[in-house]
Amino acid sequence: MLSREDNELLVRTDAGTPMGELFRRYWIPALLSEELPERDGTQVRVKLLGENLIAFRDTDGRVGLLDEFCAHRTASLFFARNEECGLRCAYHGWKYDVDGRCVDMPSEPEESNFKNKIRLKAYPCEERGGIVWTYMGPPEHKPELPELEWALLPDDQRFVSKRLQECNYMQAMEGGIDSSHVSFAHRFNMDDDPMHRDTPGLEYLKQDTRPKFEVAQSDGGLLIGARRNADEENFYWRITQWLMPWYTIIPPFGTHNPLGGHAWVPIDDENCWAWSINYHPARPLSDEELASMQAGEGIHVEYIPGTYRPVANKDNDYLIDREAQRNQKTFSGVKGISMQDASLQESMGEICDRTKERLGTSDAGIIMARRRLLSAARKLQQESLDPPALDPSTHRVRSTSVLLPKGVPFKEGAEEAMVAEPGTTFVSV
Amino acid sequence: MLSREDNELLVRTDAGTPMGELFRRYWIPALLSEELPERDGTQVRVKLLGENLIAFRDTDGRVGLLDEFCAHRTASLFFARNEECGLRCAYHGWKYDVDGRCVDMPSEPEESNFKNKIRLKAYPCEERGGIVWTYMGPPEHKPELPELEWALLPDDQRFVSKRLQECNYMQAMEGGIDSSHVSFAHRFNMDDDPMHRDTPGLEYLKQDTRPKFEVAQSDGGLLIGARRNADEENFYWRITQWLMPWYTIIPPFGTHNPLGGHAWVPIDDENCWAWSINYHPARPLSDEELASMQAGEGIHVEYIPGTYRPVANKDNDYLIDREAQRNQKTFSGVKGISMQDASLQESMGEICDRTKERLGTSDAGIIMARRRLLSAARKLQQESLDPPALDPSTHRVRSTSVLLPKGVPFKEGAEEAMVAEPGTTFVSV
Amino acid sequence: MLSREDNELLVRTDAGTPMGELFRRYWIPALLSEELPERDGTQVRVKLLGENLIAFRDTDGRVGLLDEFCAHRTASLFFARNEECGLRCAYHGWKYDVDGRCVDMPSEPEESNFKNKIRLKAYPCEERGGIVWTYMGPPEHKPELPELEWALLPDDQRFVSKRLQECNYMQAMEGGIDSSHVSFAHRFNMDDDPMHRDTPGLEYLKQDTRPKFEVAQSDGGLLIGARRNADEENFYWRITQWLMPWYTIIPPFGTHNPLGGHAWVPIDDENCWAWSINYHPARPLSDEELASMQAGEGIHVEYIPGTYRPVANKDNDYLIDREAQRNQKTFSGVKGISMQDASLQESMGEICDRTKERLGTSDAGIIMARRRLLSAARKLQQESLDPPALDPSTHRVRSTSVLLPKGVPFKEGAEEAMVAEPGTTFVSV
Repeated sequence: MLSREDNELLVRTDAGTPMGELFRRYWIPALLSEELPERDGTQVRVKLLGENLIAFRDTDGRVGLLDEFCAHRTASLFFARNEECGLRCAYHGWKYDVDGRCVDMPSEPEESNFKNKIRLKAYPCEERGGIVWTYMGPPEHKPELPELEWALLPDDQRFVSKRLQECNYMQAMEGGIDSSHVSFAHRFNMDDDPMHRDTPGLEYLKQDTRPKFEVAQSDGGLLIGARRNADEENFYWRITQWLMPWYTIIPPFGTHNPLGGHAWVPIDDENCWAWSINYHPARPLSDEELASMQAGEGIHVEYIPGTYRPVANKDNDYLIDREAQRNQKTFSGVKGISMQDASLQESMGEICDRTKERLGTSDAGIIMARRRLLSAARKLQQESLDPPALDPSTHRVRSTSVLLPKGVPFKEGAEEAMVAEPGTTFVSV
Repeated sequence: MLSREDNELLVRTDAGTPMGELFRRYWIPALLSEELPERDGTQVRVKLLGENLIAFRDTDGRVGLLDEFCAHRTASLFFARNEECGLRCAYHGWKYDVDGRCVDMPSEPEESNFKNKIRLKAYPCEERGGIVWTYMGPPEHKPELPELEWALLPDDQRFVSKRLQECNYMQAMEGGIDSSHVSFAHRFNMDDDPMHRDTPGLEYLKQDTRPKFEVAQSDGGLLIGARRNADEENFYWRITQWLMPWYTIIPPFGTHNPLGGHAWVPIDDENCWAWSINYHPARPLSDEELASMQAGEGIHVEYIPGTYRPVANKDNDYLIDREAQRNQKTFSGVKGISMQDASLQESMGEICDRTKERLGTSDAGIIMARRRLLSAARKLQQESLDPPALDPSTHRVRSTSVLLPKGVPFKEGAEEAMVAEPGTTFVSV
Repeated sequence: MLSREDNELLVRTDAGTPMGELFRRYWIPALLSEELPERDGTQVRVKLLGENLIAFRDTDGRVGLLDEFCAHRTASLFFARNEECGLRCAYHGWKYDVDGRCVDMPSEPEESNFKNKIRLKAYPCEERGGIVWTYMGPPEHKPELPELEWALLPDDQRFVSKRLQECNYMQAMEGGIDSSHVSFAHRFNMDDDPMHRDTPGLEYLKQDTRPKFEVAQSDGGLLIGARRNADEENFYWRITQWLMPWYTIIPPFGTHNPLGGHAWVPIDDENCWAWSINYHPARPLSDEELASMQAGEGIHVEYIPGTYRPVANKDNDYLIDREAQRNQKTFSGVKGISMQDASLQESMGEICDRTKERLGTSDAGIIMARRRLLSAARKLQQESLDPPALDPSTHRVRSTSVLLPKGVPFKEGAEEAMVAEPGTTFVSV
């Protein structure tokens, strides 16, 4: 439960809001590299943190991310021509390069110096891990590019997708932090899921549906430990990494299966991008694995063609199947892990009213993550304090699932397992 | 014409508004019993007086009407599992019984006492007359169940339907009170209507299109008498019962035809349920009558499949047929009594601006009904005075159509005819 | 660039706003005469300057334009019966003539004098040039009907269409004033356009994409001269007439081609009617020309059947064709001159935020037109000063395209060419 004031602080991310300014200090996954497949190809509308932008790949292959609207008369650059290292507005021909400089102004006298006075808002972009990243904050504070393990791997060891989620980023991210709901919302999915094949962890999960939670602060965010009974001597620990400001990593189900992670990025206060990544640090993904991911299985989804909106969405009640719900094929009647989460999270309303919640011990991770975000936003606003997780070394972490003797604190016991070394395999029960 | 202030008072029914609090003192038709056909079947979203609720029938056959959103993290119980005497949230498995008690909380430690602290908003429900009724007011003020004649009859003597009307309840109800519009909006319908067959009253109606109105207060609401010339000695009286807070009964057309009545129930301030009931106090409805009602004739309508929204609606201009209008098949071009009313009432806007009206003598019933509602709401708010029509004896009334000698006041002359005795036949010219 | 205050003043046109009151001093193109093809035919909803109205043609052929909503209980007259010289409301039969007088009130006692107290808002209408014009201002200030050349011609010398544009009238009209965008937005269209065949002016246009602008005040509005290099001795001048409050005339492309003009009329603050007129002052339009106009070519468009909304619209990204854009069939990928403009103008948002513009010398015409509108609105509001262009003599003007020796000021050099004499041919390079 949050006060109305804290909830507002948490969910608002437009420019000038404390949380919006916090998020602008990090690199942001902006779009898939494959959305801009070729030089001088078609530009793409991008909305991030409430700002309408346009992305394009220029003649030299560089990606630009500009204000969507021409500086002259505010026509959208969606209609512009992408040609010869710049985007030329279709209204009066003003042309901008990837840095937002006006490089041609053919409607004005050649002797005019006007074009040199025009600079369109432009955010620096970098490509890594199949993603175009952007930085929307003060240039002097631009950090190093993120070094999340999945972003550093060779392309054949990773599959990335994004989907539109029609609610505030925070209620989407809370699902990624919250290990507890897996035993319910996804209960009847886990056996089928190709990413969970043949893992002893699943048995522990089913046997003990009331895990004890312990949360510890990490340099980059939080370690959220869910402890379940395993045998006489040991606990089964699933430890989720949450990394500031919006990354979550799913604890593994066996070392033979790929890992999974997410990023939860605000489009505006009522919508977000749910990024879903599968990856294996030590081997290429198999054809079978890739085929199932492309088909929208596991944490991925099927889209309405030409969009990143899921076929199952709130307009069609997520294609709920009451027969499947009754027959225990699905817990809620909604198919697929991602849409099970999205349907529940979107059902809270576009922006969840957290003054009405009643939180329990299983919500410890969520409570701590909110606190850390609120605290970082306030410290930045009030004391100009740099937020955590700017240093890429803090990103090189793994979630893990381990058996630990009953007396051993999870943070110490799993310490080595939680270091990411791209190229090496990982620890998992 | 109303002042802006009075109009606001009349149309707003959310919790905390004076009219909303008044309505919460009455039993409310919430949904059709047939919407919850089986135990442990699919739950149904219900919105009443601006509150989002979820209805379900539990393992024991009882109906629950709960807050739509789980007390834990506010996910919708539309996705819940209806099993073993409770609705289990699909997010973390919290389970509620029909009284809103949290009866299972599997995500928290068993020793935790947390579940006993959780109580979800729940409204008591009763079934009568094919309808699930609910009471949303203070428990200590819960009255007896309504004893409207149609609700007390055996099932085979009654047909009930509901349809979505996309405007405030009051402008819908005004059509039920207003006997005057029948001569216009429905002029070319009456001969065709199977509920009006072979009735001398129709002839009086057509001969005299300018009835004189007399309105008298009744214990439960109003008697609205419309007086037309019949012959030298007699007037033809059609007397409509309006019962607080939202019931209207259509004066009969012959004792061989079923009676008709309505309830006009706020969903929110911009939408209402128009309930339509046909019934015969003394005999089962015939197969022919039932077939025509099921086909959407008379006061019923055809629906968009899977919904209670009419096929003819504001998005398609009610399928207006200008040729039928020109040829005097319909007065307005819209087909069917209910949609003729609904189209006109919705055309006033979602909430009618009554500061712009110009009322005449034929609006006497409407004027009095508004006054009674406003007065009851104010008296409840300011003096905590119980409203009228809580006592079920006030519900046992009939509308009537009678010939009365010219000197006889209608209230006295028709007194006996207006007493409801389920099982006995009724009076009608 | 405008201050927020000036922008608000410019774009708001509801009754009571300064710009709304200014516009109510002029005759307004309300609908096409062909929308009311027959006496006692179907009435039509019309929205102008934020007012909901209903238009009908009565038994005597007169056009009425009334408040859409009945004075009695505010039901829409869309459902009324158009019969015997009046519109009869379908709810209680109140009937209004073209002047808004209540001529029948059958629901009230015959002896009642009530109907004589009822007067529905009604605006005078006149037909000229295929258009029903209305006047929504104070009766004592009603001016003469407009005498725009295209309105005075015989019907076979003119083609008129209207289309819905989903943005404020001003950003639509700015496109009609702005000669500069033609070289960009429409660059690849001009050769194909049947209205531009075989004109030397097109060559000058392509050779010199940086015209110099000179703007001069006229009695009725502005002369916007765009000067391009032609040869050693001469400039090529294209002179656009802008007439208060919303008319623009396209400079001609050769005397063998029809002329073109527009009116930009507010529906409400977020939508406008873009009226498009082709006409030849000296000859009937050919079958070929009419066929192409009816097919939506040139400045006309194809509609969604039964509406005046273009098939290409913002819901389908104007059917943008990136292949055609790449291959220089269209500059922006959008097909057709009108939709090229509309797509860019609508992309600025429903109401353009002019505090963000950066205007250049090529925007001189727009800047002056805004100033003239703002000034006229302020003078009317503050000093009750009659606005310009009320006198029909100010409407009898032509736009022109001429070669003028370099020393000659365009206003003097083209003076005679800019006088409209319906029946005579015009001047054009």
